[in-house]
Amino acid sequence: MTGHTTAQFDNELEDIRTRILKMGGQVEEMIKAALVGFATGDTAQLKGVLEMEHKVNASEVEIDEVCNNVIAKRQPAASDLRFLVASMKMIRDLERCGDEAEKMARMAIRFYEAGPSMAPRIDFSAMSTHVTSMMHRALDAFAREDASVVDSVVREDKIVDDHFRNTIRLLISYVLEDSRTISRSIDMLFFAKAMERIGDHSKNMAEHVVYMVKGRDVRHQS
Amino acid sequence: MTGHTTAQFDNELEDIRTRILKMGGQVEEMIKAALVGFATGDTAQLKGVLEMEHKVNASEVEIDEVCNNVIAKRQPAASDLRFLVASMKMIRDLERCGDEAEKMARMAIRFYEAGPSMAPRIDFSAMSTHVTSMMHRALDAFAREDASVVDSVVREDKIVDDHFRNTIRLLISYVLEDSRTISRSIDMLFFAKAMERIGDHSKNMAEHVVYMVKGRDVRHQS
Repeated sequence: MTGHTTAQFDNELEDIRTRILKMGGQVEEMIKAALVGFATGDTAQLKGVLEMEHKVNASEVEIDEVCNNVIAKRQPAASDLRFLVASMKMIRDLERCGDEAEKMARMAIRFYEAGPSMAPRIDFSAMSTHVTSMMHRALDAFAREDASVVDSVVREDKIVDDHFRNTIRLLISYVLEDSRTISRSIDMLFFAKAMERIGDHSKNMAEHVVYMVKGRDVRHQS
Repeated sequence: MTGHTTAQFDNELEDIRTRILKMGGQVEEMIKAALVGFATGDTAQLKGVLEMEHKVNASEVEIDEVCNNVIAKRQPAASDLRFLVASMKMIRDLERCGDEAEKMARMAIRFYEAGPSMAPRIDFSAMSTHVTSMMHRALDAFAREDASVVDSVVREDKIVDDHFRNTIRLLISYVLEDSRTISRSIDMLFFAKAMERIGDHSKNMAEHVVYMVKGRDVRHQS
Protein backbone atom coordinates (compact mmCIF):
# COMPACT_ATOMS: atom_id res chain seq x y z
CA MET A 1 0.00 0.00 0.00
CA THR A 2 1.17 3.54 -0.60
CA GLY A 3 1.74 5.86 2.32
CA HIS A 4 -1.46 7.68 1.49
CA THR A 5 -3.54 4.49 1.44
CA THR A 6 -1.96 3.26 4.67
CA ALA A 7 -2.91 6.50 6.40
CA GLN A 8 -6.50 6.16 5.14
CA PHE A 9 -6.58 2.55 6.32
CA ASP A 10 -5.30 3.58 9.75
CA ASN A 11 -8.06 6.19 9.90
CA GLU A 12 -10.65 3.54 9.08
CA LEU A 13 -9.41 1.28 11.87
CA GLU A 14 -9.32 4.19 14.28
CA ASP A 15 -12.88 5.09 13.28
CA ILE A 16 -14.00 1.53 14.10
CA ARG A 17 -12.31 1.66 17.49
CA THR A 18 -13.97 5.01 18.25
CA ARG A 19 -17.39 3.71 17.21
CA ILE A 20 -17.03 0.61 19.39
CA LEU A 21 -15.98 2.67 22.41
CA LYS A 22 -18.95 4.97 21.84
CA MET A 23 -21.26 1.94 21.61
CA GLY A 24 -19.63 0.59 24.78
CA GLY A 25 -20.34 3.89 26.51
CA GLN A 26 -24.00 3.67 25.50
CA VAL A 27 -24.29 0.14 26.87
CA GLU A 28 -22.60 1.16 30.12
CA GLU A 29 -25.09 3.98 30.41
CA MET A 30 -28.00 1.57 29.86
CA ILE A 31 -26.75 -0.74 32.59
CA LYS A 32 -26.30 2.15 35.02
CA ALA A 33 -29.75 3.54 34.22
CA ALA A 34 -31.33 0.11 34.74
CA LEU A 35 -29.59 -0.28 38.12
CA VAL A 36 -30.33 3.25 39.34
CA GLY A 37 -33.89 3.10 37.99
CA PHE A 38 -34.47 -0.13 39.86
CA ALA A 39 -32.99 1.26 43.07
CA THR A 40 -34.92 4.55 42.96
CA GLY A 41 -38.14 3.56 41.15
CA ASP A 42 -37.57 6.22 38.48
CA THR A 43 -39.63 4.64 35.71
CA ALA A 44 -38.86 7.45 33.23
CA GLN A 45 -35.22 6.53 33.50
CA LEU A 46 -36.08 2.86 33.07
CA LYS A 47 -38.10 3.57 29.94
CA GLY A 48 -35.10 5.49 28.60
CA VAL A 49 -33.18 2.21 28.68
CA LEU A 50 -35.65 0.67 26.24
CA GLU A 51 -35.10 3.60 23.84
CA MET A 52 -31.34 3.28 24.09
CA GLU A 53 -31.50 -0.38 23.21
CA HIS A 54 -32.60 0.48 19.67
CA LYS A 55 -29.61 2.77 19.23
CA VAL A 56 -27.24 0.07 20.42
CA ASN A 57 -28.77 -2.47 18.02
CA ALA A 58 -28.35 -0.01 15.16
CA SER A 59 -24.73 0.62 16.18
CA GLU A 60 -24.01 -3.10 16.06
CA VAL A 61 -25.40 -3.49 12.55
CA GLU A 62 -23.54 -0.36 11.38
CA ILE A 63 -20.16 -1.25 12.84
CA ASP A 64 -20.50 -4.82 11.61
CA GLU A 65 -21.02 -3.50 8.10
CA VAL A 66 -18.08 -1.11 8.36
CA CYS A 67 -15.83 -3.99 9.48
CA ASN A 68 -17.04 -6.18 6.60
CA ASN A 69 -16.42 -3.40 4.10
CA VAL A 70 -12.94 -2.69 5.42
CA ILE A 71 -12.01 -6.40 5.28
CA ALA A 72 -13.32 -6.66 1.71
CA LYS A 73 -11.67 -3.44 0.54
CA ARG A 74 -8.36 -3.55 2.37
CA GLN A 75 -7.79 -7.29 2.57
CA PRO A 76 -5.86 -6.85 5.80
CA ALA A 77 -3.51 -9.46 7.20
CA ALA A 78 -2.13 -10.38 10.63
CA SER A 79 -2.77 -7.86 13.39
CA ASP A 80 -5.14 -5.61 11.39
CA LEU A 81 -7.32 -8.59 10.50
CA ARG A 82 -7.29 -9.71 14.12
CA PHE A 83 -8.37 -6.24 15.18
CA LEU A 84 -11.30 -6.35 12.72
CA VAL A 85 -12.37 -9.87 13.69
CA ALA A 86 -12.08 -9.02 17.39
CA SER A 87 -14.09 -5.84 16.78
CA MET A 88 -16.94 -7.83 15.23
CA LYS A 89 -16.93 -10.13 18.25
CA MET A 90 -16.78 -7.21 20.70
CA ILE A 91 -19.88 -5.56 19.24
CA ARG A 92 -21.77 -8.86 19.36
CA ASP A 93 -21.11 -9.16 23.10
CA LEU A 94 -21.81 -5.47 23.64
CA GLU A 95 -25.16 -5.78 21.91
CA ARG A 96 -25.99 -8.74 24.14
CA CYS A 97 -25.12 -6.67 27.22
CA GLY A 98 -27.57 -4.06 25.92
CA ASP A 99 -30.23 -6.79 25.61
CA GLU A 100 -29.62 -7.81 29.22
CA ALA A 101 -29.83 -4.18 30.41
CA GLU A 102 -33.14 -3.92 28.57
CA LYS A 103 -34.40 -7.04 30.37
CA MET A 104 -33.34 -5.53 33.69
CA ALA A 105 -35.22 -2.32 32.89
CA ARG A 106 -38.37 -4.22 31.85
CA MET A 107 -38.25 -6.25 35.03
CA ALA A 108 -37.79 -3.08 37.12
CA ILE A 109 -40.72 -1.35 35.38
CA ARG A 110 -42.95 -4.35 36.10
CA PHE A 111 -41.68 -4.35 39.67
CA TYR A 112 -42.79 -0.77 40.32
CA GLU A 113 -46.04 -1.11 38.39
CA ALA A 114 -47.05 -4.09 40.54
CA GLY A 115 -46.26 -2.18 43.74
CA PRO A 116 -43.95 -3.28 46.50
CA SER A 117 -46.17 -5.97 48.06
CA MET A 118 -44.75 -9.46 48.44
CA ALA A 119 -41.38 -8.33 47.13
CA PRO A 120 -38.32 -9.93 48.70
CA ARG A 121 -35.59 -7.46 49.65
CA ILE A 122 -32.39 -8.17 47.78
CA ASP A 123 -29.32 -5.96 47.82
CA PHE A 124 -27.73 -6.11 44.39
CA SER A 125 -25.14 -3.39 45.06
CA ALA A 126 -22.08 -5.65 45.47
CA MET A 127 -22.95 -7.76 42.44
CA SER A 128 -23.65 -4.74 40.26
CA THR A 129 -20.40 -3.05 41.30
CA HIS A 130 -18.44 -6.08 40.11
CA VAL A 131 -20.37 -6.37 36.85
CA THR A 132 -19.99 -2.72 35.89
CA SER A 133 -16.30 -2.81 36.81
CA MET A 134 -15.73 -5.92 34.63
CA MET A 135 -17.40 -4.32 31.68
CA HIS A 136 -15.57 -1.04 32.05
CA ARG A 137 -12.20 -2.75 32.34
CA ALA A 138 -12.87 -4.93 29.27
CA LEU A 139 -13.70 -1.83 27.20
CA ASP A 140 -10.71 0.01 28.58
CA ALA A 141 -8.46 -2.94 27.68
CA PHE A 142 -9.86 -2.81 24.15
CA ALA A 143 -9.12 0.94 23.94
CA ARG A 144 -5.56 0.50 25.19
CA GLU A 145 -4.94 -2.87 23.46
CA ASP A 146 -4.01 -4.27 26.86
CA ALA A 147 -4.25 -8.06 27.19
CA SER A 148 -3.15 -8.09 30.82
CA VAL A 149 -6.61 -7.34 32.20
CA VAL A 150 -8.12 -10.72 31.28
CA ASP A 151 -7.00 -12.64 34.38
CA SER A 152 -8.57 -10.21 36.82
CA VAL A 153 -11.79 -10.05 34.76
CA VAL A 154 -12.04 -13.87 34.76
CA ARG A 155 -11.51 -13.86 38.54
CA GLU A 156 -14.16 -11.22 39.03
CA ASP A 157 -16.60 -13.27 36.89
CA LYS A 158 -16.29 -16.08 39.44
CA ILE A 159 -17.19 -13.64 42.22
CA VAL A 160 -20.25 -12.52 40.22
CA ASP A 161 -21.29 -16.15 39.76
CA ASP A 162 -21.02 -16.65 43.54
CA HIS A 163 -23.21 -13.59 44.11
CA PHE A 164 -25.76 -15.03 41.69
CA ARG A 165 -25.85 -18.38 43.49
CA ASN A 166 -26.25 -16.63 46.83
CA THR A 167 -29.13 -14.60 45.40
CA ILE A 168 -30.89 -17.84 44.42
CA ARG A 169 -30.42 -19.21 47.94
CA LEU A 170 -31.77 -16.03 49.47
CA LEU A 171 -34.81 -16.02 47.18
CA ILE A 172 -35.54 -19.65 48.03
CA SER A 173 -35.49 -18.77 51.73
CA TYR A 174 -38.00 -15.94 51.11
CA VAL A 175 -40.35 -18.25 49.22
CA LEU A 176 -40.10 -20.97 51.87
CA GLU A 177 -41.11 -18.39 54.45
CA ASP A 178 -44.02 -17.08 52.38
CA SER A 179 -44.90 -18.72 49.06
CA ARG A 180 -46.76 -15.58 47.93
CA THR A 181 -43.36 -13.97 47.27
CA ILE A 182 -42.78 -16.42 44.37
CA SER A 183 -43.79 -14.15 41.45
CA ARG A 184 -41.65 -11.25 42.57
CA SER A 185 -38.85 -13.65 43.48
CA ILE A 186 -38.76 -14.92 39.91
CA ASP A 187 -38.55 -11.33 38.66
CA MET A 188 -35.61 -10.77 41.00
CA LEU A 189 -34.04 -14.00 39.82
CA PHE A 190 -34.14 -12.82 36.20
CA PHE A 191 -32.81 -9.40 37.19
CA ALA A 192 -29.83 -11.08 38.84
CA LYS A 193 -29.48 -13.50 35.92
CA ALA A 194 -29.22 -10.57 33.49
CA MET A 195 -26.41 -9.07 35.58
CA GLU A 196 -24.64 -12.41 35.67
CA ARG A 197 -24.88 -12.61 31.85
CA ILE A 198 -23.36 -9.12 31.51
CA GLY A 199 -20.45 -10.46 33.55
CA ASP A 200 -20.11 -13.39 31.12
CA HIS A 201 -20.13 -11.09 28.10
CA SER A 202 -17.55 -8.81 29.74
CA LYS A 203 -15.33 -11.84 30.24
CA ASN A 204 -15.79 -12.71 26.55
CA MET A 205 -14.81 -9.17 25.60
CA ALA A 206 -11.63 -9.34 27.68
CA GLU A 207 -10.83 -12.60 25.87
CA HIS A 208 -11.37 -10.97 22.47
CA VAL A 209 -8.82 -8.32 23.49
CA VAL A 210 -6.26 -11.05 24.23
CA TYR A 211 -6.90 -12.61 20.80
CA MET A 212 -6.57 -9.18 19.21
CA VAL A 213 -3.30 -8.32 20.94
CA LYS A 214 -1.62 -11.72 21.10
CA GLY A 215 -3.37 -13.72 18.37
CA ARG A 216 -4.15 -16.43 20.86
CA ASP A 217 -7.54 -17.92 21.62
CA VAL A 218 -7.91 -18.03 25.39
CA ARG A 219 -11.48 -19.24 25.59
CA HIS A 220 -12.33 -22.59 27.15
CA GLN A 221 -9.08 -22.79 29.07
CA SER A 222 -10.34 -22.83 32.61
CA MET B 1 -6.57 -16.30 -8.99
CA THR B 2 -5.55 -19.14 -11.26
CA GLY B 3 -7.94 -22.05 -11.86
CA HIS B 4 -5.79 -24.23 -9.63
CA THR B 5 -5.88 -21.77 -6.75
CA THR B 6 -9.61 -21.23 -7.13
CA ALA B 7 -10.22 -24.97 -6.85
CA GLN B 8 -8.09 -25.08 -3.68
CA PHE B 9 -9.96 -22.12 -2.28
CA ASP B 10 -13.30 -23.81 -3.02
CA ASN B 11 -12.05 -26.89 -1.21
CA GLU B 12 -11.13 -24.77 1.80
CA LEU B 13 -14.59 -23.22 1.94
CA GLU B 14 -16.21 -26.62 1.53
CA ASP B 15 -14.03 -27.97 4.33
CA ILE B 16 -15.28 -25.18 6.61
CA ARG B 17 -18.89 -25.92 5.73
CA THR B 18 -18.36 -29.63 6.46
CA ARG B 19 -16.70 -28.87 9.80
CA ILE B 20 -19.54 -26.59 10.85
CA LEU B 21 -22.19 -29.15 9.92
CA LYS B 22 -20.27 -31.78 11.87
CA MET B 23 -20.08 -29.42 14.87
CA GLY B 24 -23.80 -28.77 14.43
CA GLY B 25 -24.46 -32.51 14.49
CA GLN B 26 -22.50 -32.80 17.75
CA VAL B 27 -24.51 -30.01 19.35
CA GLU B 28 -27.80 -31.53 18.18
CA GLU B 29 -26.68 -34.82 19.72
CA MET B 30 -25.89 -33.05 23.02
CA ILE B 31 -29.33 -31.46 23.14
CA LYS B 32 -31.06 -34.75 22.38
CA ALA B 33 -28.99 -36.57 25.00
CA ALA B 34 -29.81 -33.91 27.60
CA LEU B 35 -33.54 -34.16 26.83
CA VAL B 36 -33.65 -37.98 26.73
CA GLY B 37 -31.42 -38.24 29.79
CA PHE B 38 -33.72 -35.92 31.69
CA ALA B 39 -36.84 -37.84 30.59
CA THR B 40 -35.41 -41.30 31.41
CA GLY B 41 -33.04 -40.56 34.29
CA ASP B 42 -30.11 -42.10 32.40
CA THR B 43 -27.30 -40.27 34.22
CA ALA B 44 -24.56 -41.97 32.13
CA GLN B 45 -26.06 -40.36 29.06
CA LEU B 46 -26.27 -37.02 30.86
CA LYS B 47 -22.62 -37.23 31.87
CA GLY B 48 -21.82 -37.92 28.20
CA VAL B 49 -23.16 -34.46 27.41
CA LEU B 50 -20.53 -32.88 29.65
CA GLU B 51 -17.78 -34.76 27.75
CA MET B 52 -19.17 -33.69 24.40
CA GLU B 53 -19.15 -30.06 25.44
CA HIS B 54 -15.33 -30.05 25.46
CA LYS B 55 -15.26 -31.38 21.88
CA VAL B 56 -17.67 -28.69 20.75
CA ASN B 57 -15.58 -25.96 22.40
CA ALA B 58 -12.48 -27.30 20.66
CA SER B 59 -14.33 -27.35 17.33
CA GLU B 60 -15.29 -23.71 17.73
CA VAL B 61 -11.70 -22.63 18.38
CA GLU B 62 -10.43 -24.77 15.48
CA ILE B 63 -12.97 -23.61 12.91
CA ASP B 64 -12.55 -20.01 13.99
CA GLU B 65 -8.83 -20.30 13.35
CA VAL B 66 -9.37 -21.94 9.95
CA CYS B 67 -11.72 -19.08 8.96
CA ASN B 68 -9.20 -16.47 10.10
CA ASN B 69 -6.43 -18.17 8.16
CA VAL B 70 -8.49 -18.42 5.00
CA ILE B 71 -9.48 -14.74 5.20
CA ALA B 72 -5.83 -13.74 5.72
CA LYS B 73 -4.48 -16.01 2.97
CA ARG B 74 -7.16 -15.69 0.30
CA GLN B 75 -8.37 -12.16 0.90
CA PRO B 76 -11.85 -13.08 -0.27
CA ALA B 77 -14.43 -10.56 -1.38
CA ALA B 78 -18.22 -10.42 -1.64
CA SER B 79 -20.02 -13.71 -1.19
CA ASP B 80 -16.96 -15.72 -0.10
CA LEU B 81 -16.19 -13.19 2.61
CA ARG B 82 -19.82 -13.24 3.69
CA PHE B 83 -19.68 -17.01 3.92
CA LEU B 84 -16.58 -16.82 6.13
CA VAL B 85 -17.98 -14.10 8.38
CA ALA B 86 -21.31 -15.93 8.66
CA SER B 87 -19.43 -19.14 9.47
CA MET B 88 -17.62 -17.48 12.35
CA LYS B 89 -20.96 -16.25 13.68
CA MET B 90 -22.61 -19.65 13.21
CA ILE B 91 -19.98 -21.44 15.30
CA ARG B 92 -20.29 -18.86 18.04
CA ASP B 93 -24.04 -19.53 18.33
CA LEU B 94 -23.50 -23.28 18.02
CA GLU B 95 -21.01 -23.24 20.84
CA ARG B 96 -23.52 -21.34 22.97
CA CYS B 97 -26.15 -23.98 22.21
CA GLY B 98 -23.64 -26.57 23.43
CA ASP B 99 -23.21 -24.54 26.65
CA GLU B 100 -26.97 -24.53 27.16
CA ALA B 101 -27.20 -28.30 26.53
CA GLU B 102 -24.48 -28.74 29.14
CA LYS B 103 -26.48 -26.66 31.63
CA MET B 104 -29.56 -28.82 30.91
CA ALA B 105 -27.53 -31.99 31.54
CA ARG B 106 -26.09 -30.63 34.81
CA MET B 107 -29.55 -29.66 35.98
CA ALA B 108 -30.90 -33.11 35.07
CA ILE B 109 -28.05 -34.86 36.90
CA ARG B 110 -28.77 -32.80 40.01
CA PHE B 111 -32.46 -33.57 39.61
CA TYR B 112 -31.93 -37.34 39.73
CA GLU B 113 -29.25 -37.17 42.43
CA ALA B 114 -31.63 -35.28 44.71
CA GLY B 115 -34.41 -37.82 44.11
CA PRO B 116 -37.92 -37.11 42.87
CA SER B 117 -39.32 -35.58 46.06
CA MET B 118 -40.88 -32.13 45.85
CA ALA B 119 -40.37 -32.03 42.08
CA PRO B 120 -43.06 -30.31 40.05
CA ARG B 121 -44.18 -32.28 37.00
CA ILE B 122 -43.53 -30.34 33.84
CA ASP B 123 -43.95 -31.73 30.34
CA PHE B 124 -41.24 -30.20 28.16
CA SER B 125 -41.99 -32.33 25.09
CA ALA B 126 -43.78 -29.67 23.00
CA MET B 127 -41.18 -26.99 23.78
CA SER B 128 -38.26 -29.32 23.08
CA THR B 129 -39.77 -30.46 19.77
CA HIS B 130 -39.92 -26.84 18.60
CA VAL B 131 -36.40 -26.04 19.79
CA THR B 132 -34.78 -29.07 18.13
CA SER B 133 -36.72 -28.41 14.93
CA MET B 134 -35.57 -24.76 14.85
CA MET B 135 -31.98 -25.73 15.30
CA HIS B 136 -32.11 -28.48 12.70
CA ARG B 137 -33.72 -26.21 10.13
CA ALA B 138 -31.18 -23.44 10.74
CA LEU B 139 -28.31 -25.88 10.15
CA ASP B 140 -30.04 -27.32 7.11
CA ALA B 141 -30.53 -23.81 5.71
CA PHE B 142 -26.81 -23.18 6.21
CA ALA B 143 -25.96 -26.42 4.37
CA ARG B 144 -28.25 -25.60 1.43
CA GLU B 145 -27.61 -21.81 1.49
CA ASP B 146 -31.35 -21.32 1.79
CA ALA B 147 -32.46 -17.95 3.20
CA SER B 148 -36.17 -18.76 2.97
CA VAL B 149 -36.27 -20.65 6.27
CA VAL B 150 -35.73 -17.60 8.48
CA ASP B 151 -39.38 -16.47 8.69
CA SER B 152 -40.65 -19.80 9.95
CA VAL B 153 -37.76 -20.06 12.43
CA VAL B 154 -38.56 -16.58 13.79
CA ARG B 155 -42.25 -17.57 14.14
CA GLU B 156 -41.31 -20.78 15.92
CA ASP B 157 -39.10 -18.79 18.31
CA LYS B 158 -42.19 -16.86 19.42
CA ILE B 159 -43.96 -20.17 20.14
CA VAL B 160 -40.97 -21.31 22.21
CA ASP B 161 -41.06 -18.03 24.16
CA ASP B 162 -44.77 -18.64 24.88
CA HIS B 163 -43.98 -22.13 26.14
CA PHE B 164 -41.33 -20.66 28.39
CA ARG B 165 -43.71 -18.09 29.85
CA ASN B 166 -46.31 -20.82 30.44
CA THR B 167 -43.70 -22.92 32.20
CA ILE B 168 -43.00 -20.03 34.58
CA ARG B 169 -46.73 -19.69 35.31
CA LEU B 170 -47.06 -23.41 35.97
CA LEU B 171 -44.04 -23.42 38.28
CA ILE B 172 -45.43 -20.48 40.22
CA SER B 173 -48.70 -22.39 40.72
CA TYR B 174 -46.76 -25.39 42.08
CA VAL B 175 -44.85 -23.23 44.53
CA LEU B 176 -47.99 -21.43 45.69
CA GLU B 177 -49.52 -24.83 46.42
CA ASP B 178 -46.46 -26.09 48.29
CA SER B 179 -43.51 -23.78 48.88
CA ARG B 180 -41.22 -26.76 49.44
CA THR B 181 -41.19 -27.30 45.66
CA ILE B 182 -39.22 -24.05 45.24
CA SER B 183 -35.71 -25.50 44.87
CA ARG B 184 -36.71 -28.04 42.25
CA SER B 185 -38.90 -25.45 40.54
CA ILE B 186 -35.89 -23.20 40.09
CA ASP B 187 -33.97 -26.12 38.55
CA MET B 188 -36.88 -26.65 36.15
CA LEU B 189 -36.96 -22.97 35.40
CA PHE B 190 -33.30 -22.99 34.36
CA PHE B 191 -33.83 -26.16 32.34
CA ALA B 192 -36.60 -24.42 30.40
CA LYS B 193 -34.52 -21.22 30.16
CA ALA B 194 -31.68 -23.18 28.53
CA MET B 195 -34.09 -24.54 25.93
CA GLU B 196 -35.44 -21.06 25.28
CA ARG B 197 -31.86 -19.82 24.75
CA ILE B 198 -31.19 -22.59 22.22
CA GLY B 199 -34.24 -21.30 20.36
CA ASP B 200 -32.73 -17.77 20.39
CA HIS B 201 -29.40 -19.02 19.07
CA SER B 202 -31.15 -21.03 16.34
CA LYS B 203 -32.94 -17.87 15.29
CA ASN B 204 -29.58 -16.07 15.18
CA MET B 205 -28.18 -18.85 13.00
CA ALA B 206 -31.07 -18.59 10.55
CA GLU B 207 -30.35 -14.83 10.39
CA HIS B 208 -26.66 -15.47 9.67
CA VAL B 209 -27.75 -17.65 6.73
CA VAL B 210 -29.79 -14.74 5.32
CA TYR B 211 -26.78 -12.43 5.63
CA MET B 212 -24.61 -15.07 3.97
CA VAL B 213 -26.98 -15.64 1.05
CA LYS B 214 -28.39 -12.16 0.53
CA GLY B 215 -25.80 -9.88 2.11
CA ARG B 216 -28.49 -8.29 4.21
CA ASP B 217 -28.56 -7.88 7.95
CA VAL B 218 -31.98 -8.99 9.16
CA ARG B 219 -31.38 -8.74 12.87
CA HIS B 220 -33.34 -6.27 15.00
CA GLN B 221 -36.12 -5.92 12.45
CA SER B 222 -39.04 -7.21 14.46
